[in-house]
Amino acid sequence: MPQYTPPLRDMQFVLHELIDVTTAFKAMPAHAEVDVDTVNAVLEEGGKFAAGVVFPLNQSGDAEGCTRDPATHAVRAPAGYKQAYAQYVEGGWASLSCDPAYGGQGLPQVVNQCFYEMLNSANQAWTMYPGLSHGAYEALHAHGTPEQQATYLPRLTSGEWTGSMCLTEPHCGTDLGLLRTKAEPLADGSYAITGNKIFISAGEHDLAANIVHLVLARLPGAPEGSKGISLFVVPKFNVNADGSLGARNGIWCGGLEHKMGIHGNATAQLVLDGAVGTLVGEPHKGLAAMFVMMNAARLGVGMQSLGLTEVAYQNAVAYAKDRIQMRALTGPKALDKPADPIIVHPDVRKMLLTARAYAEGGRALCVHTALMLDQELSHPDEAVRRASADEVALLTPIVKAFLTDNGWIATSHCLQVFGGHGYIREWGMEQYVRDARINMIYEGTNTIQSLDLLGRKVLADNGRKLKAFGRRVADLIDEEGVREDMQEFINPLADLGDKVNKLTTELGFKAMGNADEVGGAAVDYLRVVGHLVFAYFWARMARIALDQQGSGDPFYTAKLHTARFYFAKLLPETASLIRTARAGVAPLMAMDESMF
Amino acid sequence: MPQYTPPLRDMQFVLHELIDVTTAFKAMPAHAEVDVDTVNAVLEEGGKFAAGVVFPLNQSGDAEGCTRDPATHAVRAPAGYKQAYAQYVEGGWASLSCDPAYGGQGLPQVVNQCFYEMLNSANQAWTMYPGLSHGAYEALHAHGTPEQQATYLPRLTSGEWTGSMCLTEPHCGTDLGLLRTKAEPLADGSYAITGNKIFISAGEHDLAANIVHLVLARLPGAPEGSKGISLFVVPKFNVNADGSLGARNGIWCGGLEHKMGIHGNATAQLVLDGAVGTLVGEPHKGLAAMFVMMNAARLGVGMQSLGLTEVAYQNAVAYAKDRIQMRALTGPKALDKPADPIIVHPDVRKMLLTARAYAEGGRALCVHTALMLDQELSHPDEAVRRASADEVALLTPIVKAFLTDNGWIATSHCLQVFGGHGYIREWGMEQYVRDARINMIYEGTNTIQSLDLLGRKVLADNGRKLKAFGRRVADLIDEEGVREDMQEFINPLADLGDKVNKLTTELGFKAMGNADEVGGAAVDYLRVVGHLVFAYFWARMARIALDQQGSGDPFYTAKLHTARFYFAKLLPETASLIRTARAGVAPLMAMDESMF
Repeated sequence: MPQYTPPLRDMQFVLHELIDVTTAFKAMPAHAEVDVDTVNAVLEEGGKFAAGVVFPLNQSGDAEGCTRDPATHAVRAPAGYKQAYAQYVEGGWASLSCDPAYGGQGLPQVVNQCFYEMLNSANQAWTMYPGLSHGAYEALHAHGTPEQQATYLPRLTSGEWTGSMCLTEPHCGTDLGLLRTKAEPLADGSYAITGNKIFISAGEHDLAANIVHLVLARLPGAPEGSKGISLFVVPKFNVNADGSLGARNGIWCGGLEHKMGIHGNATAQLVLDGAVGTLVGEPHKGLAAMFVMMNAARLGVGMQSLGLTEVAYQNAVAYAKDRIQMRALTGPKALDKPADPIIVHPDVRKMLLTARAYAEGGRALCVHTALMLDQELSHPDEAVRRASADEVALLTPIVKAFLTDNGWIATSHCLQVFGGHGYIREWGMEQYVRDARINMIYEGTNTIQSLDLLGRKVLADNGRKLKAFGRRVADLIDEEGVREDMQEFINPLADLGDKVNKLTTELGFKAMGNADEVGGAAVDYLRVVGHLVFAYFWARMARIALDQQGSGDPFYTAKLHTARFYFAKLLPETASLIRTARAGVAPLMAMDESMF
Repeated sequence: MPQYTPPLRDMQFVLHELIDVTTAFKAMPAHAEVDVDTVNAVLEEGGKFAAGVVFPLNQSGDAEGCTRDPATHAVRAPAGYKQAYAQYVEGGWASLSCDPAYGGQGLPQVVNQCFYEMLNSANQAWTMYPGLSHGAYEALHAHGTPEQQATYLPRLTSGEWTGSMCLTEPHCGTDLGLLRTKAEPLADGSYAITGNKIFISAGEHDLAANIVHLVLARLPGAPEGSKGISLFVVPKFNVNADGSLGARNGIWCGGLEHKMGIHGNATAQLVLDGAVGTLVGEPHKGLAAMFVMMNAARLGVGMQSLGLTEVAYQNAVAYAKDRIQMRALTGPKALDKPADPIIVHPDVRKMLLTARAYAEGGRALCVHTALMLDQELSHPDEAVRRASADEVALLTPIVKAFLTDNGWIATSHCLQVFGGHGYIREWGMEQYVRDARINMIYEGTNTIQSLDLLGRKVLADNGRKLKAFGRRVADLIDEEGVREDMQEFINPLADLGDKVNKLTTELGFKAMGNADEVGGAAVDYLRVVGHLVFAYFWARMARIALDQQGSGDPFYTAKLHTARFYFAKLLPETASLIRTARAGVAPLMAMDESMF
């Protein structure tokens, strides 16, 4: 049976020693009172909830899956999910970072994101039920009418109701411009919406009294393509003027998907048959409103893989210390045993350290990004808000794609540590791999993320956002480059920074000649920039660890060793990636389609 | 629903144009009469059997899995498996490459391996039932007494009975020296065997009348560790002197594993309770006899991932041509459609070409290795037999680990081409990924393969076997290096050859100082050598394709483009691998176990 311990010590390190979030909070009136003790207390309690309530349902939920009653179209989540959700609502967890104007606790996003890392470690499928609500909340908070906000936000904040994002249709996922769902105006200003949606996570279930669906559809006479899409809020149950639930709305679950993983989450096919909804934001501007949800969701997906990486690592370490098999190549270590624990074997350690370095590096990046999000939302200085928003925009595709690719690599390595037992369900490792696989796909495939990064966030922006992050890197190099003991980290960071600059310029020139060059290099490019970002945070973490070597606390020794491992064994992936990115698009496009 | 077309054209290219197997057969009296038409006819019929009979059972077998009757311990394979197996036996497929002395058709291993590639594309789980028989057949053929051979080989050859390999126990997989199963001598010269085995593929089922278990166990007073292990043959049903089936032997299925994939194959826990068996080979020399099975099995595992890579590729191509989504970055291509087929997108092509280049390169390597195996077994010249055996020994861990790692990468890419649909069971792609995962683990994890390659096959041998392969590479460079149009292939091949030599020497020196250096570099090293082998075959394939450019046959144009893709986009992985291999073991071993 798998185990999970919330990584509170490492979270505290990242929050308070590396990023120093509470100092940053002081500049934001909304969060100025949030101190170290508050953050730590919330996360300690959150960790108890994740490990104690949600984690025990992970394997059982995977085995049981969701069930749909064909007569009523009702969907039941696995046993225990509903009760755990009730505890979640009762504990006030839904409202952690929501607006006090709607009953929220108003805590920073940083705190909520760390809480979500733990929930995802504990049970990704369960966590998607409350997780999807955040996107609906954000979209309505940003673009809803006062009436919509009054109707929906308090119940989403409390968690009494959950949300969903209804974008995908059978013939369109990435290309939402193709969507066909139609919204016909009704006399009272609302709309009758008809169409078919698929892959709707948490699209139907029995955890909450109502589901607030955010639905993309076309108005009559809307322009073709993505410029003719509008966003609607469509509740599962209509809501009366007094806030009580009215009649069942015409949005039904037509079926559930059978998936590789996240079995505990209902992936619904939704049939909208004249379902009544109201417009969110401007007509035909639905994609912009949708991106408010989507950006939040993309950070959330990165957090899912961070959570899976952490829990897979913890279990692989426990197994590697316990399982005895073969002697160390350098001679027996556990003389009292018939063989050595497999953690003596270098490649087992390499697999473990890969997961560890990806988890800890990912945590640093996520906390930093969440703090930038807090500054974007709550900082009084507009220049800071804008700079923070730019950084969130730059880092979002990296969080989504780099962390989910890393999660796939890491969970697979952790499975491998278990040998044949890793392939057997009861050990729980293969579930982490299966669950991790969806994260590379949904909320924009990782290829789409890479095009977003290279095409939109870097090249279309003339490298402005990237240069801003580059200044962080340059400042660190200036500051720490004089320290002898930091050379082993600063030199490769500086080297990679130069290479990223050169590669970016080269790709920009190539793209002017042939737009396909962006598509040919983008996936490699994103991983290169991902490593630059990780190298930056690992260098900063190494500096703190070096300064604390006198403390006698093994935490800092481990941090330093993990930093060295990262620079020695993971960062060099960039050598290949830069070559393949520079090899250009011709080797991909030369072959005629008919020859495939 | 997935589709599968046997890749007969590419097999014929590899067999007859690249390797020219029938010319090689002429030097072997046992195979001198096997001509091109015979090979092609067998594979054409074999492909029909794989695609027509076995492939339709792949998804249903995955969904149904195997069932065990707790009262009788009997195991039933999924619906249709038994009937397909009967057709396999009736068609004579079991005996393809078996010894005519026992009723076999005596065809070369090369032919059987190509047939197995197609079976594995069609249904890996089903194919393991007949597949495991080959190991039992090989062990008894090489080490059985005349009586054992007379009793078992004709029935294994015909396929009436299947085989199994009973090695692993709950506390020992890689480290067979720890095994505890005991064999007590009986008065009649046989043994009563008692113990628990796990992870026994095809260990119990209803496809055949009897199962011939090859079981590792300890004799009384046996030396500790791996030098005290003996091999026994333990039939499910005892065999009477007249060859008829006698009483049920004391070997029972105690349970079936619930696995990530290969659900259609019964992975049995076997309880031996005084099961009667006879000794195979010498007492305490069981590991050597077992390695006869194991080496055959390792090549078979590589072939499993080759098959999965091919079928995943075929389906991803079909989807990429059919699915329309977004416009090409360079402007619309399918003007008659609302969007372009996704094969216009560079990264989709990169994912497809990765699978294609790994499949075609893997096929070349597997056919070459199988021909070396035929020469090892059947060549009249002892020097050729010995040199061929050395090459098989060198290439076996590469076939096993490089092809199965590539299969994991390729099947995951092919799933990704499908976007969200790749995660849904009905499309069949996620099954290929789940099935492919076990291949990196069983018959010696890929880490074990890498230690076998670097430690045993290369360093312990003073690089002799590697140098012999190096001479093939050098000969090709000498021969083709003068051709201008071969420079793009020969130059990187020569460069990588030099780097492999340097890296090997460097690791050899390091290993003398610290044995752990082998374990720290072996996995990277295996992939580097794997790419050297692939680059060698891709350069040879490119040469043939270049020579045929005037033929107007698009097959050769596609081959040339795929070769260029391989050199531009896959081979550069070696740049990173060489760096991480050279980074040494210190970053892996520095951290104390307690800090993990």
